[in-house]
Parts: sequence; C-alpha cells; structure tokens
Amino acid sequence: MSEQQLARYTYLGPEGTFTEAALRAFVGTEHVRTDPSTDVVSALDAVRGGRADFAVVPMENSVEGGVNVTLDTLASSPEPLVIVGEVVVPVAFVLAVLPGTTLDQVRRVSTHPHAWAQCRGWVGRELDGAVHVPATSTAAAAALLADRGREAGFDAALCSALSAERYGLEALAEGVADNPHAVTRFVVVSRPGALPEPTGADKTTLMAHLPDNEAGALLDMLEQFAVRGVNLSRIESRPIGDSLGRYSFSMDLEGHVAEERVAAALIGLHRVCPFVRFMGSYPRWDRVAPNVAPGTHDADFVAARAWVERIRTGQV
Amino acid sequence: MSEQQLARYTYLGPEGTFTEAALRAFVGTEHVRTDPSTDVVSALDAVRGGRADFAVVPMENSVEGGVNVTLDTLASSPEPLVIVGEVVVPVAFVLAVLPGTTLDQVRRVSTHPHAWAQCRGWVGRELDGAVHVPATSTAAAAALLADRGREAGFDAALCSALSAERYGLEALAEGVADNPHAVTRFVVVSRPGALPEPTGADKTTLMAHLPDNEAGALLDMLEQFAVRGVNLSRIESRPIGDSLGRYSFSMDLEGHVAEERVAAALIGLHRVCPFVRFMGSYPRWDRVAPNVAPGTHDADFVAARAWVERIRTGQV
Amino acid sequence: MSEQQLARYTYLGPEGTFTEAALRAFVGTEHVRTDPSTDVVSALDAVRGGRADFAVVPMENSVEGGVNVTLDTLASSPEPLVIVGEVVVPVAFVLAVLPGTTLDQVRRVSTHPHAWAQCRGWVGRELDGAVHVPATSTAAAAALLADRGREAGFDAALCSALSAERYGLEALAEGVADNPHAVTRFVVVSRPGALPEPTGADKTTLMAHLPDNEAGALLDMLEQFAVRGVNLSRIESRPIGDSLGRYSFSMDLEGHVAEERVAAALIGLHRVCPFVRFMGSYPRWDRVAPNVAPGTHDADFVAARAWVERIRTGQV
Amino acid sequence: MSEQQLARYTYLGPEGTFTEAALRAFVGTEHVRTDPSTDVVSALDAVRGGRADFAVVPMENSVEGGVNVTLDTLASSPEPLVIVGEVVVPVAFVLAVLPGTTLDQVRRVSTHPHAWAQCRGWVGRELDGAVHVPATSTAAAAALLADRGREAGFDAALCSALSAERYGLEALAEGVADNPHAVTRFVVVSRPGALPEPTGADKTTLMAHLPDNEAGALLDMLEQFAVRGVNLSRIESRPIGDSLGRYSFSMDLEGHVAEERVAAALIGLHRVCPFVRFMGSYPRWDRVAPNVAPGTHDADFVAARAWVERIRTGQV
Repeated sequence: MSEQQLARYTYLGPEGTFTEAALRAFVGTEHVRTDPSTDVVSALDAVRGGRADFAVVPMENSVEGGVNVTLDTLASSPEPLVIVGEVVVPVAFVLAVLPGTTLDQVRRVSTHPHAWAQCRGWVGRELDGAVHVPATSTAAAAALLADRGREAGFDAALCSALSAERYGLEALAEGVADNPHAVTRFVVVSRPGALPEPTGADKTTLMAHLPDNEAGALLDMLEQFAVRGVNLSRIESRPIGDSLGRYSFSMDLEGHVAEERVAAALIGLHRVCPFVRFMGSYPRWDRVAPNVAPGTHDADFVAARAWVERIRTGQV
Repeated sequence: MSEQQLARYTYLGPEGTFTEAALRAFVGTEHVRTDPSTDVVSALDAVRGGRADFAVVPMENSVEGGVNVTLDTLASSPEPLVIVGEVVVPVAFVLAVLPGTTLDQVRRVSTHPHAWAQCRGWVGRELDGAVHVPATSTAAAAALLADRGREAGFDAALCSALSAERYGLEALAEGVADNPHAVTRFVVVSRPGALPEPTGADKTTLMAHLPDNEAGALLDMLEQFAVRGVNLSRIESRPIGDSLGRYSFSMDLEGHVAEERVAAALIGLHRVCPFVRFMGSYPRWDRVAPNVAPGTHDADFVAARAWVERIRTGQV
Repeated sequence: MSEQQLARYTYLGPEGTFTEAALRAFVGTEHVRTDPSTDVVSALDAVRGGRADFAVVPMENSVEGGVNVTLDTLASSPEPLVIVGEVVVPVAFVLAVLPGTTLDQVRRVSTHPHAWAQCRGWVGRELDGAVHVPATSTAAAAALLADRGREAGFDAALCSALSAERYGLEALAEGVADNPHAVTRFVVVSRPGALPEPTGADKTTLMAHLPDNEAGALLDMLEQFAVRGVNLSRIESRPIGDSLGRYSFSMDLEGHVAEERVAAALIGLHRVCPFVRFMGSYPRWDRVAPNVAPGTHDADFVAARAWVERIRTGQV
Repeated sequence: MSEQQLARYTYLGPEGTFTEAALRAFVGTEHVRTDPSTDVVSALDAVRGGRADFAVVPMENSVEGGVNVTLDTLASSPEPLVIVGEVVVPVAFVLAVLPGTTLDQVRRVSTHPHAWAQCRGWVGRELDGAVHVPATSTAAAAALLADRGREAGFDAALCSALSAERYGLEALAEGVADNPHAVTRFVVVSRPGALPEPTGADKTTLMAHLPDNEAGALLDMLEQFAVRGVNLSRIESRPIGDSLGRYSFSMDLEGHVAEERVAAALIGLHRVCPFVRFMGSYPRWDRVAPNVAPGTHDADFVAARAWVERIRTGQV
C-alpha cells in the first residue's frame, strides 16, 4: 500500500503523549500515518477539514472526570463528527529530569494540571514543598525541559514513559500515580459515514439539552432510557453556557443505535429534549456485552411492533 | 333495505333495561334489528357465534365501578371481540308498582344489586325498613312484578322509566338516585374487523397482566404510558384469579391505536407485560379531544424516527 | 368468665355462611358470643353502634375481586372502623338439595351471584341449561330451600358444607368450584383503639383519593410507596362516585404503621392525596414476613433522621 | 473593634483575582482581614487549620462548569467544611499589557486555562494566531508580567480589571468575554458550626455517591427529591475515582435543611446512597425564593406526621 493510501491519524500532541500511546494501542499493527496536533480543538478541526481521517483525543479520566474541551467541541461544532472507537489506557507517570538531576534538586515540577492533580499525594510525600508549573500537556513539559534545560523554569516533568524516552530525559521515579487504578479513556473520531458494525458490545455517545431547568426534566430524560432497559455507562453534566443552572448531559449508552432498544430510547429523547446530538455508536474497548433485560431484546421490539401492526389492520 | 340486511343488535335484556335505552341512544334514527339476551355472557356469545352483529352491554357505573362480568368476559374469551363504540347514560330509577299500590304498602323492593346500592339512601329515607329482593336486572324485577303480581314476592321494583312503561307498572316515584350525577357507561361490541376511523377524540381499551406481584410492576407499567404522554381515563384492577394479590388491569387510554403515542405505549406494554389484550379503539361518547402534550404529537414521533433512521445510515 | 364479658362477634349471616366459617377459624378455641347480621352494612353498623365488639365480613375473593360493599362502607363511613385481623379460607361449594332430589331434577339453582360466577363452568358441565336464581347469600339460599321446599322457586342451593348441614339439606355434589385454588379473604373489624402489636408480618389497609384524574397522579401516589420500599399486596380502584374517571384506591401495604417505612409512606400519601383513610394495621393470616429492601429497615430511618438532626444543629 | 477580633478571610489569590472581587462583594462594607492563598486546596486548608475563619473559592462557571478542585476538596476532605454563603459575579476580562505595548505586538497571552476557554473567540478575531501560555490564575499572569516584564515569556495577560490596576498594567481591551452573560459563582466556606438562618431563599449543597453504576440508581436518587418536591439548581457528576463509570453527584437543592421538605429528601438520600456529605445550607445570592409545590410546605409535613402519630396511638 502506498503512503498516500494509508489512514491519516492526528492526536493530541506533542509526540510522546498518553494520547499517542492510545493511538498505538488502537491501531495495533496496522500501518498508519500520524501527525500530532497542538490541542484537542486543532485535532478535531484537522478531521473536519479533511487533513486527517481520524483524531485520537482524551474523553475522560477516572480521577479527573470528563475532558471538557473534547465533550464541548464534539457536542457543539456546527459540522458534526462521530466517534468510531475508544481506547482505555492506564495512567502512571514518570518523574523526568535532565540526566544527572537528583531528587533533592527538584523544587519546581511542570506538567498538565490534570496530571498534577493525579500525583499531588505522591509529590507531597516525595517532593514536599515542590511547586507546580502548569504546562499545556505532559509531553510539552518534557519537551520544554529537554529543549531549554535549566532555562525551562522548572526542574522536572511528570510525563509518560514514552515522552521521557523520546525527549532523552531520565526517569527519577516510575509508576507515579496517587490512584494505581487510574485510567484515561480516549476516543477515535472521524467524519460521519457508515457506522461501525454492531458487535454486541458497543457504546453510543449522545449529548442532550434538558427541556428546562427543573430537576423533573432530568428524571423525565432518564425515564426514556429506563423504560427501554438502556443502561448508561457515563453521564456528565455540562453547562449550556447561557446562564447558571442550565445543563446539557453528555452520556454513553450501553448498546448500538442499530439495536432496537437504543434506537427506541433515542426516538424518545428526540421527542422530549430540545436538542440531541448523536456522537457515534462504536465497539467497547473492554468487549463486555451489556446485560439486556427481559422484554428489551430486538426480538421483543419486533414482536411488539408486529402485534400493533396487526391490531391497526383489524386482526386482533 | 330488506329486514335481512339490517344490522342485528343484542343487548343485556330483558326489554326495557337501561342497556336497551343505551342501544337506542347509540343507533339514533338508524333502523336496526334488536333482540335481548338474558345476560352479558349470552349477549357477547351471540356476537361471537354470529347470531348478532353487535352487543350492547354495561361496562362501568360512576357509583358502583366496573361491571366485572363484562370486563372479565371481554378480557378472557378465547375468541376476542372488540369495542367499537360507547354510550354514557344518566342513571335514575322509578319505583314501579302494580297500579293501586301506595308507598306505605311497599315493604319488599326488587331490583338488581347495583341499582339497590345506588338507591340505598333514598330507600332509607322514603321506605324505612324496606328489604331488598335481588333480581338479575332492573327490568327483570319489573317484568316479574307485572307477570306474577302479589305472588312475585315483593311489592315494588326499582327500574328504568322505560321498563315501568313497557310492563304496565305505575311509577310511585321518579328520578330515584342517591347521586344525581350517576351515569352508566355501555359499550358496543363486535367481532374484530376494520377499526372505527380515528376521530381525534377516541378511546382505546386494553387489559394487561402485571409481570409479577410487586408494586413496582404497576409503576413500570404506568411509566410506559407516562413516557409517551398517554393519559388513562379508566383503570381498574381485576384479580387474575389464580391467587390473591395477582392482578390484571383493565384500562381506557385517551387516543386511538392509529395515533403514534398510543401505538408506542402499546408496543411498550407488549414488551413488559406477560399478556396484553387489545379490546378496541373507538370514538368517545363525549367527543372531548385529549390534551396532547408537547413532544407526543404524531409529527414528533415521525420526526424522531426519521432522525434515527438517518443516524443509522450514517447521515448525522 | 361470665357470658356478659365474652367478646361479641357479628358476621355476614345468616348462620352457615363462609363468613361464619372464617370467624370460627379466626377465634380458634376462644369462647365468644356470635350473632349474624343480615348484610355487611348491618354488621359494620353493629360494631359502630356498640352492639358488637367485632364484625367479620368478606373483603376480597381471588376470583371475583374486591367486595365493594365492604370496601366502600369501611372507606366512607363518617365514624371510622379499623381492621384488626384477617382470615383467608378456601372456597368450595356443595350443591345442596332437599333430601331425595336427584341431579337431573335440578333446573333452577339459587346462590349469591359471586358464588354463581365461581361455579359457572361446573354448572355448564353438570347441570347444562340450569338457570340462576340470585340470593343475598349462599346461606340464605340454603335457608330458603329448607324453609319453603318446593315453593322456594328453585331446586338446589350452591352453599357451604356448613350451611347444608345446618339447614338439613343433602349435598348432591361437594368441592364445587371452577378454580380449585379459589380463596376468600375476610377481615375482622372493630372500633378504633390500641392497634394490634406489630408481629413482623403485618398488613396495613388504606384508602386514598387521587389528587386529580390524570394517570400521572396514580404514578405519583405509587412513588410514595416505591421510594420507601413499601410493597402493595392489594390495590383496587373504586370510583369516587361523583363522575366517571375519578378513582380512589383501596390498598393493602406489607408492614405495620408502627414500622418506619410504612409510617413514612403514609406521611407522603397524606401530603399528596386530598383524602386518605387509615383502615388498620394487623397480622397477616399467612404469617409471611415481607422482604425489606436495603435502606428501608427501621434502623436506616432512625440513623438517617439522627444524621439530619445533627446537621441541623451544626454538627456535620 | 481591634484588628485581632476581625473576621479573617482567605481566598484564591494572588491579589486582584476575581475571587478577591467576590470576597469584596460578599462582605460589603464590613471590615475584615484578608489574606490570599496560592490555590483552592491551600485556602480550604487555612480554614480547616484555623488560620482563617472563611475561605472564598470559585465553585462553578456558567461556561466552563464546575470547578473540580473545589468540588472534590469539599466533598472528600476528612474534616468537613461547610458553605455559609455564595456570590455570583459577572466574568469579563481585560487584556493587560506592559504600558506601551500595542495590540499587534501581542503574540503570546498568559491566563488561567478556564479564562482562555472563555475568550477563545475574541482572541481568534482580535489576536489571530496568538498562543496560550497557561498560568495558575489570571492574577498570577498579571503579576508575572508586571514583575518580569519582557522576560515573562508572554506579552499580555487576560485578567480582571482589578488585577491590571493593582499590578500597574495597561488595559488594551476591556469587557473581553465570548459570552457576555458569563458568570462565576463563588462560595464562602467555614468550619462547621451553627448554620446560617433560613431566609426563605436558600440553597443546600450536597454530595452523594450512587449505590451502584446502574442508570436506575440515578433515577432512584432523583426520585428522593421529586417525591418531596425539592428542585435542584445544580447537578454535576464527578468520578468516584476508583474506576470509570462510577459517579458521585454534587448538587445544590433549593431550600434550607431547616425546611421540612429538604430534611425529608436528605433522610431519603441517606437511606439509599452509600455515602452522602452535607456541605451547607445558606442564603441564595439572588434572593429568589423557590416555588414550593402543594403538599410540600412545612405545614403539610407537620400535619402528615401528626396524623400518623395519632394513628399509631389508636386515634383514627
């Protein structure tokens, strides 16, 4: 296959980020072209504009929660993109320094604020008094340290092992993470087109505005899922932005829109919410099939519809 | 039109019952053949067996509640019948006696137990100490009194004005009813066939078994209506009959199965209930159109389904 | 103990009814005074007026459903009575005749309409063509046949074995019942006073008017039970009586008002329903303890209230 | 009053932040001692440790959503703090530069990432191509620019007008905000003690873990509010942190825990959620009283409880 025909991936760069690691986990041994973007918005823009076929961006972290810029950009962009896959990767950092630096010399540590939040306990124990120098990404901190050395304004970067290696830094500590089970979930985004085939273990991502700012409205929305036996694996509130107290909800449903119960829930949602955006149906990373409740299998919907059709034509 | 081609109606007889009055109100000036049945089961059997085209039978009374034999026979018969119309008539009785009888001579009063229940207060005031002699119908009491006279075993019948007139009895009192607003609702039943056209002001009658004997099961069933904005104008519990605590529910929904929201609710019900029987969609007697909530008009369902169809084919 | 001090029971008579059998099952070997009433209303009036301490009346039947006169009289009487116990008895009839009558001579059968409904299948098979002569009770049919013989106007009575024996009739058939599992539930009613002690296996009987005639109102009412984990073992709709479509609900809750979850549900019901009547907390006949869901034990309520009390006094 | 007795406030510093402006709006003309903290965690620690009486910290922004560090620190600290007040301030920035800098010289702009997110559109239009240099706060960016001048590594700061003034910078543009209605809500936090008195227009802040990761669990939780007529003005999901898909919810309820309906909802929540933290009842900044639904006024709860008490003592 020629280089021109290879799938083109962009990702939240620079090189060496956890996002690049997620991309590698997703494509496996497939040969692809990769090109980092400077931020999530740029990565998604590259796909929208046709400069990339796919973008890999972080979606949520088990400690820090949703990545707002990803949620908000996917939910509100005028030309919709869709999620076609997900990757979940464990998160643990290395404390990367210029070769020769010792632990007691580390007073200023640069990293992305989310990474900092996930290492605060470790820093308190091992680097008591160290201060945080925010960076736009963990890899950017590593790159800057490698590039500028003592002029970087900090002594160490908390970054991925891949970053430390790529930028020629030394790992003074590995496996740094306050929560050893911390994971980050990344999504693979493309322009709309044929949906990934249902696998029996899929997710559907949606964003819906609530009809009004009553608590009852959220209950009503959730009942659209409950009556069709559709479970949610993620639900996150986001401000609509025009005033406090008005929310949209970003959700992952267990199932594929090609399945009856998911389609029925979406139909219900479309009726009761002023705005709904479909953001993709795609295979789950963990391949775990949902527990489908009695009365909510595809066959149950098909049989029920056929029954009502017979009634409507007078065959009771 | 020859006599052979006239629509054949049977009804809960004998002649002169409130049911016959309801039949007359329903057919209006149409020329039909009528033939009383001895009880509700026989009337419905006559339609099932083809000896009548339609049966008119009582369904519920605003004071006494549902007429169990009608509900149960329609709900459980192996060959289903469907309701094609309804009639609501005010209920007030006359105290019918043999000509010459005076009020102070009335010690024993025959009538149907439901009628007795609706006149108890009046009897207590006007005929203190009078006892009830149960009859199979109000008209049967009148007929027996006219037929047997003093040998009937009672002195008066509480029946319809039509009965008193038809059996040559004298009305010692008219408009007898503890509740002046009491009404009885009758239904017109036929064999299955093309449904009555939707009029915009229709009812749909159903019977559904609950999935189990938990209170939550009733809640789940009602939510199938709530999420589609379908209101109920009647809900009555009936024992399933195999043990205490197991219920089916007989319900009237506001709307016609040809309407989207009603069809959607029926589809949901079919999925969650072990047994559902459709018993007809037909015009309301009062011609009052239901209040259709935002998001539950036919157009909302059509638009939502089209949206999901587009999603499924990759056109977000 | 002198005769004057014995507990005085009345019941739906005449002697020999299933109700008398229920009374005997309830009092066991206790020595009591019994006195039949002519109907349910009279039995309850006797208690209200102090002429009896307890009344035993039928409440519901597994085939025919609720006994409306009992439900309505208990629910609407200006001076409330309370249920202090229940009895469930299997229902099977005997076909009682004057000695010497043979099966092929039986053309007219008298019994209470509810009994008739429960033997219709048997009658169709064994006494094809036999007609029903309604009686105010099964025992009344037996008594009249014994009293008037051929002049009674019917040839046989469907009644309890006790009735046949007491009135000197011969049982041409025994165990007559279309449904071999049919049972009737009777309640023991007294004037208000100290409630029966909670046993861990109790019922609470209530009647509540719905706030309006929306289906949503029933859902709201049921949610008051659901959020406290209170299950219903009986729910029956009754018309409020002022117009079609307005219902009250008569319910049995699993549990005793002395239990926290039941008390909490009643408090909720009192807030949302325009009218609620408490009709008793009493031991279940079957002694089956309810399944109490996590978070709804008495200790959970006590702990939660204590927590809120601490909060209110500033001790977080 | 001596300096020693003045209330001591800390806030998210450095001087000149929007948080300091909020503090000033909250205390009005009251004379207080103020001392900035370097971050939210330190500000809350200062109160916990007794070095300050109150901390003012940002809670949520109408565009960016909840401030996770505030939500998480308040929700999870072993020694609880409580919110005793709130302040809502409009958010608009100035583009602050060293005196003499012109707009076309601005290529690198420093500010807090949340501020950057709220000015992205403006930057795109007015400073096309400008890049973001993240800072720990808007005021820190201003302070660094004033302190280091050309050595700061950026040309301008997006900060509050107060910051620009305090640090002697020049505002090249004012009222910078993509959304002119953007507001930030700050909370005033203290150690537990007597709650602020109910004013009739209060909020109660809570955090609750869901019992399990089913969508139904969220529905169940919301029903605890719905059945008591308690509305939510804020609901935000936060990961519990041990795995993806497990959430806690941070919520503001309309009402004060001293009010019956709020207390009842909290009691219900305590029963169904594995963990609930009360984080304060305090006056709303906007002084808008909630709409209290029928059946949910204090008097309704009091009357309902009294009714159940009477029942329990046998007075029906």
